[in-house]
Amino acid sequence: MTGTNTDHATRIIDRCREIAGHTEVSGEITRRFLTPPMQAVHALLRRWMESAGMTVRVDAIGNIRGISTASVPDAPCLLIGSHLDTVPNAGAFDGILGVVLGIAVVEELQDYPLPFSIEVIGFSEEEGVRFSKPFLGSLAAVGGLDEYALRRKDREGITLAEAITHYGLDLADLSDAVLSPNVFAYLECHIEQGPVLENEGASLGIVETLVGQTRMHFLFEGQANHAGTTPMHLRHDAMTAAAEWIVAVEEYATTHTGLVATVGKLEASPGAGNVIAGQVKASLDLRHASDAMRNTAVAAMIDNARSAVTKRGVRLTTHTEMEQPAVPLDAHLTTLLQNAAAKAGFPSRRMTSGAGHDAMILAPTVPSAMLFLRSPGGFSHHPNEAVLPQDVEAALATAMEFLAQLRDDRTKDGHA
Amino acid sequence: MTGTNTDHATRIIDRCREIAGHTEVSGEITRRFLTPPMQAVHALLRRWMESAGMTVRVDAIGNIRGISTASVPDAPCLLIGSHLDTVPNAGAFDGILGVVLGIAVVEELQDYPLPFSIEVIGFSEEEGVRFSKPFLGSLAAVGGLDEYALRRKDREGITLAEAITHYGLDLADLSDAVLSPNVFAYLECHIEQGPVLENEGASLGIVETLVGQTRMHFLFEGQANHAGTTPMHLRHDAMTAAAEWIVAVEEYATTHTGLVATVGKLEASPGAGNVIAGQVKASLDLRHASDAMRNTAVAAMIDNARSAVTKRGVRLTTHTEMEQPAVPLDAHLTTLLQNAAAKAGFPSRRMTSGAGHDAMILAPTVPSAMLFLRSPGGFSHHPNEAVLPQDVEAALATAMEFLAQLRDDRTKDGHA
Repeated sequence: MTGTNTDHATRIIDRCREIAGHTEVSGEITRRFLTPPMQAVHALLRRWMESAGMTVRVDAIGNIRGISTASVPDAPCLLIGSHLDTVPNAGAFDGILGVVLGIAVVEELQDYPLPFSIEVIGFSEEEGVRFSKPFLGSLAAVGGLDEYALRRKDREGITLAEAITHYGLDLADLSDAVLSPNVFAYLECHIEQGPVLENEGASLGIVETLVGQTRMHFLFEGQANHAGTTPMHLRHDAMTAAAEWIVAVEEYATTHTGLVATVGKLEASPGAGNVIAGQVKASLDLRHASDAMRNTAVAAMIDNARSAVTKRGVRLTTHTEMEQPAVPLDAHLTTLLQNAAAKAGFPSRRMTSGAGHDAMILAPTVPSAMLFLRSPGGFSHHPNEAVLPQDVEAALATAMEFLAQLRDDRTKDGHA
Repeated sequence: MTGTNTDHATRIIDRCREIAGHTEVSGEITRRFLTPPMQAVHALLRRWMESAGMTVRVDAIGNIRGISTASVPDAPCLLIGSHLDTVPNAGAFDGILGVVLGIAVVEELQDYPLPFSIEVIGFSEEEGVRFSKPFLGSLAAVGGLDEYALRRKDREGITLAEAITHYGLDLADLSDAVLSPNVFAYLECHIEQGPVLENEGASLGIVETLVGQTRMHFLFEGQANHAGTTPMHLRHDAMTAAAEWIVAVEEYATTHTGLVATVGKLEASPGAGNVIAGQVKASLDLRHASDAMRNTAVAAMIDNARSAVTKRGVRLTTHTEMEQPAVPLDAHLTTLLQNAAAKAGFPSRRMTSGAGHDAMILAPTVPSAMLFLRSPGGFSHHPNEAVLPQDVEAALATAMEFLAQLRDDRTKDGHA
């Protein structure tokens, strides 16, 4: 259904880079939810979508949506997309690549009738930067954006509701942002944002599950004291207790498959070189595709910390800041997607996503599948973020085969 | 030579508390070098010294010096003292106790002729707070205050030379601050600033050596990355490398007698809970009475860090910020001081000082001895800093016996 040269990839990458030119901060890529450069992004996408024969609208949360309607009346609809916004000083592909790929799919379909419509969606917000709450676009699409969220304020004191109005959208239309009931599947293509595919020399990953996540902080309280006059055996050193725990966290995660555990933030006080640390506050970010495994790991981390503090006469307090259960994607669609990759001639590996994506919000409502593209150098949320043309070509070819698989699957099931 | 009730201790402690009332910051004890409250401290000490029959002057660096002259012509001189300044939000005894005790010794001597004079000195600066350089008072007393030091600025931009002038002193007289050649010994009484004596239930410690100190920082450079998408085996985590090293530092110090090693300061960047630390900068403060042992320990710490970084693909850079050799006190005077404590009826233990003191500056020039008083709760540089009356009484009795030992010693040696 698609060619094997990289012309498609070149155009897709060029389009991503053109969109990257629309930024809040000159010289870098920073495009937060409903900021002025998003108008130009909407205009560009609208142009490309309309050229591909799609009917385009921007919904009340700022999601851009182009529909390519099937010739069949009341046809079901496949949703393809990802998000439009970026983190500060981002790369050119996180999110937007999945939207531009969706448009490319429709362009390829010009003379290829399908028994279902395709809606390409560019979610207006996923990164959570402007209102410290992620997934605003996909939440609105599943009717999950509540009044409380609309009252959130950005750092300038503008509420989410006001931001919508300022952008020229009408909050009264928010219910129209909810997906049509005839949407039967969601496909999201996204860069991996990690080094796994590159490390294995693979172009594509098939996401089975978006991992669950626990975020905590661990407070170690010892006794600050003079570094010169306090013998080792009379210390209550919060730093060494925390350090022993951090080593244990790493050891546990390394020896438990699929687990990642990170202590990325550590604050020691009083924080002087010649004073024993009286207090250390350290973060823990722990993720696994199995909620049971994650909970077992959290308990083990607390046990490890208890062991480290007890021998030093240090006190431990833990606080759980966030618990996000794992979100499995649709098993059947995931199999179809892997078959599609194989049929298109590209080996793929099944994997989990360690990061959150719009598919996480949609999956409980709409059967969802996710395709990862290799991230060269593992760069993401970084100006060096990139994609390889052959991987983009592979993703497009896989998406086209996925449509064929879906068509055959639905015919087999008597849908069409 | 002194009574056994605690009347002396009560008066000494009361005087320390009276001096503590003269502070830069109401409600706490903060008295930096040549700040306005130092004028009142000088006035109080002058009054007590003159009442004890001493001839008093304030030298050009702000050291207050009272001399009780022996009846013997051209008598040698014993120097007794400590410092007048404090750290911010300090206790009432660090430094000043040694000065007030010196005055009490002279008061006790009213009818007790000695073959040597006694000069009680209150060094104007030891803590290094105002000009980020410690020991200004004792350095001036040994002629060690250079032009470079005089150009140092405090946080208001006032130079050390200007601070001297503003206080009403005359820099031209700086050479008169140098100790007279007839000073044959220095005795400093000081709170321990640590928990060793209290932990052993002892009133007094006899300092043999002021430990040598190495201050370094260790820079661990890994690669910042996504905490969710980067599997454990593909990480270059600066935090876990640093943590393994910190545990090794503690282990090494705990198993090497007399060594203290502290990582009190740690800065991780980017410092986000969901990002693997790309860089960690950690301090090391390492002290031992033997310079050879200290240097061996430093080499071991670097080896431990190398081992921790190599297995994680993290880079290590180390930087030595300060190396202070150990300063042994005078062996003969130290023996006399311990004999004096025993004769006065107080068991004492020989120990090292993990902190620096004015004796460290004087010892290379003047044979020096140091007496530590127990620090209840180990508090120092803290409002809870205290001394027990019986320990003050023990220190005064020991100092008086020390004078007798010195007298007998000098007679035996044919000095007098």
